[in-house]
Amino acid sequence: MDYRTEHDTMGQVQVPADKFWGAQTERSRNNFKIGEEGSMPKEIIEAFAILKKGAAFTNADLGVLPTAKRDMIAKVCDEILEGKLDDQFPLVIWQTGSGTQSNMNLNEVISNKAHANNGGVLGEKSEIHPNDDVNKSQSSNDTFPTAMHIAAYKKVVEHTIPAVEKLKSTLDEKAKQFKNIVKIGRTHLMDATPLTLGQEFSGYVAQLNFSVKAIKNTLPHLSELALGGTAVGTGLNTPKGYDLKVADYISNFTGHPFKTAENKFEALAAHDAIVETHGALKQLAVALYKIAQDIRMLASGPRSGIGEIFIPENEPGSSIMPGKVNPTQNEALTMVCAQVLGNDTTISFAGTQGNYELNVFKPVMAYNFLQSAQLLGDACISFNDHCAVGIEANEPRIKELVDKSLMLVTALNTHIGYENAAKIAKTAHKNGTTLKAEAINLGLLTEEQFDEWVKPEDMV
Amino acid sequence: MDYRTEHDTMGQVQVPADKFWGAQTERSRNNFKIGEEGSMPKEIIEAFAILKKGAAFTNADLGVLPTAKRDMIAKVCDEILEGKLDDQFPLVIWQTGSGTQSNMNLNEVISNKAHANNGGVLGEKSEIHPNDDVNKSQSSNDTFPTAMHIAAYKKVVEHTIPAVEKLKSTLDEKAKQFKNIVKIGRTHLMDATPLTLGQEFSGYVAQLNFSVKAIKNTLPHLSELALGGTAVGTGLNTPKGYDLKVADYISNFTGHPFKTAENKFEALAAHDAIVETHGALKQLAVALYKIAQDIRMLASGPRSGIGEIFIPENEPGSSIMPGKVNPTQNEALTMVCAQVLGNDTTISFAGTQGNYELNVFKPVMAYNFLQSAQLLGDACISFNDHCAVGIEANEPRIKELVDKSLMLVTALNTHIGYENAAKIAKTAHKNGTTLKAEAINLGLLTEEQFDEWVKPEDMV
Amino acid sequence: MDYRTEHDTMGQVQVPADKFWGAQTERSRNNFKIGEEGSMPKEIIEAFAILKKGAAFTNADLGVLPTAKRDMIAKVCDEILEGKLDDQFPLVIWQTGSGTQSNMNLNEVISNKAHANNGGVLGEKSEIHPNDDVNKSQSSNDTFPTAMHIAAYKKVVEHTIPAVEKLKSTLDEKAKQFKNIVKIGRTHLMDATPLTLGQEFSGYVAQLNFSVKAIKNTLPHLSELALGGTAVGTGLNTPKGYDLKVADYISNFTGHPFKTAENKFEALAAHDAIVETHGALKQLAVALYKIAQDIRMLASGPRSGIGEIFIPENEPGSSIMPGKVNPTQNEALTMVCAQVLGNDTTISFAGTQGNYELNVFKPVMAYNFLQSAQLLGDACISFNDHCAVGIEANEPRIKELVDKSLMLVTALNTHIGYENAAKIAKTAHKNGTTLKAEAINLGLLTEEQFDEWVKPEDMV
Amino acid sequence: MDYRTEHDTMGQVQVPADKFWGAQTERSRNNFKIGEEGSMPKEIIEAFAILKKGAAFTNADLGVLPTAKRDMIAKVCDEILEGKLDDQFPLVIWQTGSGTQSNMNLNEVISNKAHANNGGVLGEKSEIHPNDDVNKSQSSNDTFPTAMHIAAYKKVVEHTIPAVEKLKSTLDEKAKQFKNIVKIGRTHLMDATPLTLGQEFSGYVAQLNFSVKAIKNTLPHLSELALGGTAVGTGLNTPKGYDLKVADYISNFTGHPFKTAENKFEALAAHDAIVETHGALKQLAVALYKIAQDIRMLASGPRSGIGEIFIPENEPGSSIMPGKVNPTQNEALTMVCAQVLGNDTTISFAGTQGNYELNVFKPVMAYNFLQSAQLLGDACISFNDHCAVGIEANEPRIKELVDKSLMLVTALNTHIGYENAAKIAKTAHKNGTTLKAEAINLGLLTEEQFDEWVKPEDMV
Repeated sequence: MDYRTEHDTMGQVQVPADKFWGAQTERSRNNFKIGEEGSMPKEIIEAFAILKKGAAFTNADLGVLPTAKRDMIAKVCDEILEGKLDDQFPLVIWQTGSGTQSNMNLNEVISNKAHANNGGVLGEKSEIHPNDDVNKSQSSNDTFPTAMHIAAYKKVVEHTIPAVEKLKSTLDEKAKQFKNIVKIGRTHLMDATPLTLGQEFSGYVAQLNFSVKAIKNTLPHLSELALGGTAVGTGLNTPKGYDLKVADYISNFTGHPFKTAENKFEALAAHDAIVETHGALKQLAVALYKIAQDIRMLASGPRSGIGEIFIPENEPGSSIMPGKVNPTQNEALTMVCAQVLGNDTTISFAGTQGNYELNVFKPVMAYNFLQSAQLLGDACISFNDHCAVGIEANEPRIKELVDKSLMLVTALNTHIGYENAAKIAKTAHKNGTTLKAEAINLGLLTEEQFDEWVKPEDMV
Repeated sequence: MDYRTEHDTMGQVQVPADKFWGAQTERSRNNFKIGEEGSMPKEIIEAFAILKKGAAFTNADLGVLPTAKRDMIAKVCDEILEGKLDDQFPLVIWQTGSGTQSNMNLNEVISNKAHANNGGVLGEKSEIHPNDDVNKSQSSNDTFPTAMHIAAYKKVVEHTIPAVEKLKSTLDEKAKQFKNIVKIGRTHLMDATPLTLGQEFSGYVAQLNFSVKAIKNTLPHLSELALGGTAVGTGLNTPKGYDLKVADYISNFTGHPFKTAENKFEALAAHDAIVETHGALKQLAVALYKIAQDIRMLASGPRSGIGEIFIPENEPGSSIMPGKVNPTQNEALTMVCAQVLGNDTTISFAGTQGNYELNVFKPVMAYNFLQSAQLLGDACISFNDHCAVGIEANEPRIKELVDKSLMLVTALNTHIGYENAAKIAKTAHKNGTTLKAEAINLGLLTEEQFDEWVKPEDMV
Repeated sequence: MDYRTEHDTMGQVQVPADKFWGAQTERSRNNFKIGEEGSMPKEIIEAFAILKKGAAFTNADLGVLPTAKRDMIAKVCDEILEGKLDDQFPLVIWQTGSGTQSNMNLNEVISNKAHANNGGVLGEKSEIHPNDDVNKSQSSNDTFPTAMHIAAYKKVVEHTIPAVEKLKSTLDEKAKQFKNIVKIGRTHLMDATPLTLGQEFSGYVAQLNFSVKAIKNTLPHLSELALGGTAVGTGLNTPKGYDLKVADYISNFTGHPFKTAENKFEALAAHDAIVETHGALKQLAVALYKIAQDIRMLASGPRSGIGEIFIPENEPGSSIMPGKVNPTQNEALTMVCAQVLGNDTTISFAGTQGNYELNVFKPVMAYNFLQSAQLLGDACISFNDHCAVGIEANEPRIKELVDKSLMLVTALNTHIGYENAAKIAKTAHKNGTTLKAEAINLGLLTEEQFDEWVKPEDMV
Repeated sequence: MDYRTEHDTMGQVQVPADKFWGAQTERSRNNFKIGEEGSMPKEIIEAFAILKKGAAFTNADLGVLPTAKRDMIAKVCDEILEGKLDDQFPLVIWQTGSGTQSNMNLNEVISNKAHANNGGVLGEKSEIHPNDDVNKSQSSNDTFPTAMHIAAYKKVVEHTIPAVEKLKSTLDEKAKQFKNIVKIGRTHLMDATPLTLGQEFSGYVAQLNFSVKAIKNTLPHLSELALGGTAVGTGLNTPKGYDLKVADYISNFTGHPFKTAENKFEALAAHDAIVETHGALKQLAVALYKIAQDIRMLASGPRSGIGEIFIPENEPGSSIMPGKVNPTQNEALTMVCAQVLGNDTTISFAGTQGNYELNVFKPVMAYNFLQSAQLLGDACISFNDHCAVGIEANEPRIKELVDKSLMLVTALNTHIGYENAAKIAKTAHKNGTTLKAEAINLGLLTEEQFDEWVKPEDMV
């Protein structure tokens, strides 16, 4: 491989000749061989491109950057956003906890690519200095959390929430479709009083409704941007009005209501906004787990399980058992939920560990957050498209189970009291008979009374 | 010990003669010797007393319970709330996951105590049946989650939030008191550009502000009551209008805006509201950890640490090192935060494990939630009263550190560029000299320029 | 209440006249009103009594404490161990993170009670100085971790492991009892090839075997005692040979193989032994969860569930549904498991947060550890006695399910290939018929071949 | 893109013409668009190649597979292990929880590639049937957990442990190098009695020693292989002796002491071995966190921190603060530790969720385990090479701090008692003077006594 010489304040470094990055990126690449190269999420790189462009425009507006430099910077940012420079960001998550090296990766690539765009030769001094121009009015300490918030907000609003809404809508249709199908209820996994299958599904819809509300409640905090705080939150080396204006640019570029953080010290030293929104994603995972678990239990069988619903048969389920079909979408979804629960532990832990003016667990928080938001969205869509839309009721089986249930006896409480009702149920259970037979047999009520009072369809 | 005979639908049980509880409580007491007897939180017992009273009034209003019975039930509920029956609730958290046995504990105690209040003899049949009267229009499956929400809401609103507000207010005063004290900033634990001590504290205030907002965002979900759903959410065996009316009574009794749950199936089968609010408590723990950790680091010393602030000396710090004083309040608070993080894992796990119409992890969720809310509130008050209010700045030490800092060089970036500025800092670091000396020595600027450009007080 | 005056190096304090504790205990009691008074686990107090006695003997043997003082100290330690002084330890978990105040609570109570035992008046100077005599050759920093290890080791070895062994033994008997009952297997909750009920239970036994092994593997680390390290691990102010000898005394007093920690710096600054053993307790919780969950699913019904086994009916299951019986022991056990998972999060977090020569999360680690070990032991016994011992197979139901299963087709793979076998299973599933009928119908094999090749009892 | 037609028991599927995978892989690829394509860890693919080869040899030895087929299968397995087929495994982690589809991915690729190796045309029927030959005597349910154990064991033994040993060895050298440097101790972040820098480092070595021991303790469980259990643990469709022999082959191929699982039911339905070993990895993370945190605190400064050691300067630390250098390796390592703590939550959760004969959270457990083991190993090496090896003591600073410490007073306890010693320390603290001055001034001892008794070098 060919190399060229780049330098930074520590000296010279050999860099692959065909890459735009500079000395600091290369140092980081060599010093942090931890996990897979290039693991810093691409959403963070894109968010950086947005904010670097926003900063260039703001700096120009406020008279601290020439318009020509602004345009050179903005052009490279656009190239990044168009995906033209995807191979220029080799750094890993497991680097410095401020993400400084990824900020410098952006600064260096923008500087060198701008130079190349201008016809310059790599290795020469660029017209655009990575620190003095691309990073003007910025620090890693305010850019990285800004990139985190932009990336997290976009992912949640553009991907996760719509995916949940899609699934919720399907489950809501199912709730309506199943609204008259009376089935046995189950509490403690044991037979209980009846409800409709539609009512059961309405609970899932309610859970997802609450989850979406909970996520949305957290967005105002997440929409606050640290940019303008620079090194420690004081805004050193920024022109007046910079923080408000740069947030406006970012809002315009993204179409989302970002605003400058009211308190920049909090925005650098703590990442409670990430903790907060991920807390809501975790709640979503909790809800989805219950839903996916219920549906696979309801669909269990085909002959020795519950079998009250059918789910789509998508793949041969076993490499050894011919004809077996499994609830694979439910399994993928519940595994995603398990992942999100663990990610929440990591994010909460990392959130506690800020010291003084900075929290240096930024990359690991960003990584876990984006993974959760991506996987939850993907899994909701997958579960929706390959499972939920195809759910059908197994009405004969449902009827069979409700008809033989003993818990219909509960309807008698208000007529003959809890203790007499219990006597009927226990006797029928012991004898393997029906409630009606034992009710009459015990002389507690007449056949007519039983038929009038015990109607599953009136109990829902 | 003397015993009397009580019975339930399973048969007879010997019960301590001086206790009001009945057969089912005693069965549970014998069958679940797990952890400390009586560990079911008293807040749950009290919430049950509130809801039993509310149910009695509602049942009477709707014509399904005689007024006389209502009053007998309500009288015992009031006795419970006045703490007169504290020794009547021996059950543990680690019982059935629906809390049925604690519901029956209340039903039995109310039934028997009402009988005794009426001059009856324990062991005789009470005028008030535990199931048919006290539990009328109720199931454990809707009462226990209702008790959870009442207890959780009250604890958070009456204890946790006011405690956090108290601490926040103290820290806000400190932020104002310290607003002109310029100090060295620290990022990555390393010296950085200056800020004021007041700015540092303002970040803590901002964190607590966000935490309180986050908690409040979750309260509407927590204010929803399952009562009226009975066994599986359908409201079987409740009179029309019961759910709305009973929520009104509970609101009136507590002074909090409780409302009936829109979807009762969700309210029994999932406890996402508990997951949601505890998620916000966890965020609070994350914030408090950062704050307590910072303050103990800032106060570290007295001679070999950071030493920028003084905290009150409350106790001898060591049994072996004479004269030692330690940041003990910070330690108590951070231990509480560690506990809350673990409680969140438990609550989230439990939240995923609902099946069909019921989640049977109710007691463990209630226990962890209430512990977190209590400890966070207690620890905020303790930390406030015994630490935060007494924090003072060590101004000579702060000045000493800021004066010798090398990171003031950052102010020169906009004048001589990042690379020249770095050269000055590195040279001063290497030589153990001052920035000014090396700046002049390197010929990069004049003494006058240095004095004009590098002013810590202008950098904050 | 009457008070007397006590003093410490910070000055005078009013202390309840009838209590033996002194100034530092009272300061802590007033400064840490967090959670319930007296919440420091009694196992820690007892472990302290053991180690204080051990230290007194060692100090006397090594000539730094008069025999008379040794005996006075030892006498009070014995009184503590006999439970005579239970009301003398009012401090909470949420105090200083080194547990200094609980160490001083012991020192003060021993000093004052010795004085009283000697006929002295409380408030006078005791012959036994809390620091110079009771705490001789000790620091909180080495006594508290020593108490943690003693208490943790004893609890695990004397309570948790025997409880697990008891349950394991019962399950092993069940495995043997059920060894010839052929039942349908289930994978993905879906019908699979058969196995015996005994084989299913043998898996539970294997899990518990591994759990016990895993716990035992951690005991050597837990048996290491910090005592002799004093303030920072160097052993300052201890006589030569003290650490070895005091560990011997503690081994003798407890009957457990405690030994002095090879590296005292690790023993004070890290609590990886607690993390390690609790990790194994968490594994046990994981195993127990699977077992308890399986058993309640197998017992689900009675008419609309799986119903392959019967579990004991211990309590009425519902306050509204007459005759309902629930798997309440399973619920208690799974709630305990959920608690242990959360406790592991707390312990791991706390374990990371040592700084320099000390980890100051000792009490919270001890509290969570002891809770887990206690609850797991209690719940195993409860589950064993009230559930496992009474498990019976529902053979007719088991036979019914295995007979109609489609997955018996797997036995044909080696005769007619996976794809042909799949065709038979799918056709039978679609038509609601039997494997045999479709096998013959499809012309893939004869009736005789089917009967010879498809025998559930040969497939296990 | 060109496609060819493949089929499975569900029908025909279009597959990219240039890929060797078949219908089931393609179904999974289309049905599970969750996260990044190809995210199933390559270590799992390799472990599958090893076990498929082992199974082919065993099947041939036992007479159920022709030698020619064995060799055709083995040849493709070798190609996979040589990395020649890396683009043939597109499936994701978030698929069926048994990993069936990845097992089939291997079966299909081996089948088709063998056919191609034989000069066959893709799309034609292969001589080697994916189920009947490649998967002979296997099920996904026993192959996937076998692959998990092989991959996990290899990663831990070949990567993680050697990396930890490397770091441990470096820290041990440092402990020896620093063994005579007396420094101030710190407990509660506050000044304490002295120790040597070497002693401080010896604590780190001890922690890593315990961590390695803990990991090794778990290996026997991890070395047990499920292979031979097939669908539900009974070993259906395997020839006699298969399980022992196939474990031998795998041991030979890998050089590790794998053995067949004693209880195959446990090996399929529970993954406690993964939980167990990951628990030990989590302990390692806890230990590494303490070490990395201490080292960055000790190195903090350069002028306003602790500054007792120097760590290597590897990269410019700030994009805005010229000359700043940060403890970046410590940050990467502590972020890895945070990740591992979260992974442990995921793995424990997943471990609890087995049902009946199968745990269907296999891929998510494998993914988290392998990530932890990889990252811990990588981060240890990176921290070792770029930080630990270059740690140097800042002796002048260390001496400055120890000289002015007040906690040297502890040496006087045994001469003048704790209370007098405290008086000296408190007076010196209040007056900002030295212990010696105040000791003499208070008349508690002579200058000669002070000099004789208070020697930091005698206190370590």
